[in-house]
Amino acid sequence: MNFSFVFNRFGLLLLVLSALLAAAGAWSLGLVTVGDAAEQPAAGALLISAVIGGAIGFVLWWVTRRAAQIGRREALLLVALSWLLGAALSALPFFFWAQFEPGYLVNPHPFANYVDCYFEAMSGLTTTGATVLPNIAEADHASGVAPLPRSLLLWRSATHWLGGLGIVVLFVAVLPSLGVGGKRLFKVEAPGPKSEAVTPQIRETARALWLIYLVLTAAEIVALKLAGLDWFDSVCHTFATLATGGFSSHNSSIAGFDNAAVEWIAVVFMLLAGVNFGLYYMVLRGKWKQALRDTELRVYLVIMAVAATVITLSLIGTQYHTTAGDAVNGGAGDAVRYGVFQTVSIQTTTGFGTADFNAWPFVAQATLLALMFIGGCGGSTGGGLKVMRIWVMLKVIAAEVERAFRPNVVRPVKVGRATVDNDMKLGTVVFIVSMLLIVLAGGVAIEGFEQLAGHDECTFRTSGTAAVATLFNIGPGLGLVGATENYGWFTDASKLLMSLLMAIGRLELFAIIVLFSPRYWRGD
Amino acid sequence: MNFSFVFNRFGLLLLVLSALLAAAGAWSLGLVTVGDAAEQPAAGALLISAVIGGAIGFVLWWVTRRAAQIGRREALLLVALSWLLGAALSALPFFFWAQFEPGYLVNPHPFANYVDCYFEAMSGLTTTGATVLPNIAEADHASGVAPLPRSLLLWRSATHWLGGLGIVVLFVAVLPSLGVGGKRLFKVEAPGPKSEAVTPQIRETARALWLIYLVLTAAEIVALKLAGLDWFDSVCHTFATLATGGFSSHNSSIAGFDNAAVEWIAVVFMLLAGVNFGLYYMVLRGKWKQALRDTELRVYLVIMAVAATVITLSLIGTQYHTTAGDAVNGGAGDAVRYGVFQTVSIQTTTGFGTADFNAWPFVAQATLLALMFIGGCGGSTGGGLKVMRIWVMLKVIAAEVERAFRPNVVRPVKVGRATVDNDMKLGTVVFIVSMLLIVLAGGVAIEGFEQLAGHDECTFRTSGTAAVATLFNIGPGLGLVGATENYGWFTDASKLLMSLLMAIGRLELFAIIVLFSPRYWRGD
Repeated sequence: MNFSFVFNRFGLLLLVLSALLAAAGAWSLGLVTVGDAAEQPAAGALLISAVIGGAIGFVLWWVTRRAAQIGRREALLLVALSWLLGAALSALPFFFWAQFEPGYLVNPHPFANYVDCYFEAMSGLTTTGATVLPNIAEADHASGVAPLPRSLLLWRSATHWLGGLGIVVLFVAVLPSLGVGGKRLFKVEAPGPKSEAVTPQIRETARALWLIYLVLTAAEIVALKLAGLDWFDSVCHTFATLATGGFSSHNSSIAGFDNAAVEWIAVVFMLLAGVNFGLYYMVLRGKWKQALRDTELRVYLVIMAVAATVITLSLIGTQYHTTAGDAVNGGAGDAVRYGVFQTVSIQTTTGFGTADFNAWPFVAQATLLALMFIGGCGGSTGGGLKVMRIWVMLKVIAAEVERAFRPNVVRPVKVGRATVDNDMKLGTVVFIVSMLLIVLAGGVAIEGFEQLAGHDECTFRTSGTAAVATLFNIGPGLGLVGATENYGWFTDASKLLMSLLMAIGRLELFAIIVLFSPRYWRGD
Repeated sequence: MNFSFVFNRFGLLLLVLSALLAAAGAWSLGLVTVGDAAEQPAAGALLISAVIGGAIGFVLWWVTRRAAQIGRREALLLVALSWLLGAALSALPFFFWAQFEPGYLVNPHPFANYVDCYFEAMSGLTTTGATVLPNIAEADHASGVAPLPRSLLLWRSATHWLGGLGIVVLFVAVLPSLGVGGKRLFKVEAPGPKSEAVTPQIRETARALWLIYLVLTAAEIVALKLAGLDWFDSVCHTFATLATGGFSSHNSSIAGFDNAAVEWIAVVFMLLAGVNFGLYYMVLRGKWKQALRDTELRVYLVIMAVAATVITLSLIGTQYHTTAGDAVNGGAGDAVRYGVFQTVSIQTTTGFGTADFNAWPFVAQATLLALMFIGGCGGSTGGGLKVMRIWVMLKVIAAEVERAFRPNVVRPVKVGRATVDNDMKLGTVVFIVSMLLIVLAGGVAIEGFEQLAGHDECTFRTSGTAAVATLFNIGPGLGLVGATENYGWFTDASKLLMSLLMAIGRLELFAIIVLFSPRYWRGD
């Protein structure tokens, strides 16, 4: 293992994170000068975090600056550290803020415990969107819970944006070129040049992806501004949308604006964020037709359309509330508005809530639950098992069923025109079975931690969907982790486990699981 | 598809079932002559069922008596029909009894609905042991529920015994020789002679297995009789034990005898029933050492020992009740007695209850839940995913983890000295992922059916473990399907779904799933 290289690049990452922390801190200071007193402790928290992160990052980078070699093991360790320790740095401003905030209304402060800060930061960087905060933006003197300063809200949303960008670059540009794990499954390109040519190719693709991500970001910010949001809300919600994260700058999420245009803009950009970013790169290079023929894209859209139809139909005549607390009375227009939004939000694993789907009919809930498992396309910012894997799995199962009565017929499993080879078949099914086992074990463990702590109100509906919602990077589940609830009440043990689940899901299993393998650490 | 052959052999099976129905009916008549009035309607029900089954079986067999050819597709259809329609015939005596019983105390009669009878018969033939009956053997005038006549209790237990024998012969002798599905995984033999020699080899193996099963049956009956049970209870519980079924002839299951010797005898025979019967055949042919070296056997015993230790330790100091309602106060002796029994009962998927484990500590419940997924050895009468598949899956996952950082190293996956080839790896993992998806979808569907019917008390704890307990042929689950509960309160939709789950689990997926494949029915 070439630790020098890993530390060098990880140091660079810390420097980038620190620069962004400093930028948020500077903005916060600016708000203080125009009279926003709540920003004072936040500015300090952000700047101190930036200094700590910057110092560690610089030292790591400087000491190891002569390292130059990258291999698969180094790439995996770097990826794992980036999220596991990147979240540790990203959590610092929340923690310091809790220490500095003198006038905070409640005790304990929701960020007084570092585990809560870590959960929130991991939830941000993994684009999950599960929050420990009972109150985000509106001062609530009845419950005595104070709102977050705007600079910290921005930082919280920025962790989404960074995490989403990181994942797209990683899974579209870096890992396929290194041939890591089952990543070839999502490689849109024809097999590229090998060895020496790998690094320049990675650079070029990464640059294009970064540009695409920036353009989409700018487009959504402008669209939301035109639809009536202020710049701050536009930026925060854009960060959460494109990363399929789900953090909002308001307690009632997007429903609080009660603005259908905003909702439909979010639907469009969530849909775009759930698509393989490699396809946009293809389009950039003029390959429109090839991109539109992509099998995964088509399956993704078909699943989305079918699910939206089922859910919308089930909502006609159903009474429920929006996440802002307004009653919805089951008209067809509302069914389309809330049904389509929630379908897209859940399948792309964004997790924005406009309606409290805990009160929806069972068929709608079951459909949403199924969508949580499926998720977005490979190479998108979406989570879940990924549409392509589900598609390959279904074809492999069909082939195995046929083998039961016709063992000597070998029928190739195809996706579009490409044949799925044996390694890819096995890799895909092993990935899915591993994730299912993790979600089952995770749900049981969370239930166990909560039962031991005397949280009898935490049933399997809650603990099971909490495991699903974190492993698949969605955010809200059902029951006590529903669209209008939060994760603050869980035990620390559950929160740490769920932080790990978020990282496992976001990094597609192996980058985290290899860390537990002795063979990985041995040099052989 | 050679339907003639399928109908011919299915006709034979009906004749066998009818002969056994007639035998039970004759015994019932004998009881009537010695003054057991409750037997009168039961005798009629059994004999009429025997006549109906015998007539249909004879016609099927006679009309198709010239058919002679067997292929994989025919074998699969025959297997599916044997359970799906065999259960339909086995359910008849319950249904007729409900029609004939004039003095039955409650309305509706628990067997008034044919769906309940079918569920009970399927539960018997698949050796699941889930019952719809709130009362089995003791007259309960408070609730007004009358007991089952003894001849029907015997028939109910006999369905277990027949189902267990059928499964052993099928999976050890018939299917491996035909090379169906992933059955080679459990084939203890070296690859046998092909083509012409297959049928005699199947015959010889089947005869040996039948003999082994009979000897074990006789041994357990005698042991239970010596321990103090009467002949009737000895026979019923032996049938349920060797088939890893779990039906008892008493409401409080084995705990009602309050006889530790009986419990330890059951433990020994449950353990024996969970072992691949192919190993006994090996022993019969003098290959002791080879049998004891079997990897699956060793893993099975290790899992059992670890789980029993964990559960026993967790029970020290825990207060709960036996299924007979007696308080247990957490002494170490009781912890061993009830902990070991329940561990063996659940992992072998027998499902006998001596303690109400719904009230056990969470760690004990979680361990039992994990054991439900694992189950017994391949080629045993036990259900679950099977120890061998879990073992292969873990090895395949470990190999895939290594591939993430070392893609060019091909390390063969080995079980004992044998290498698992690619087809077997893929087949094993596909089997497990399919079963996990079925159990998830099944649990959600059951929850949905019950919610639609207004059964709000049915939470995911109940519906989820009901799906697990039926698909993996265990019997009891947690919550409202716990050790002291029954399945009678479910909607018909859930009961039919669970009957299908029992068949899917018992026949290891493919025999049932192929029926839904158009390619299976087409001649190509």
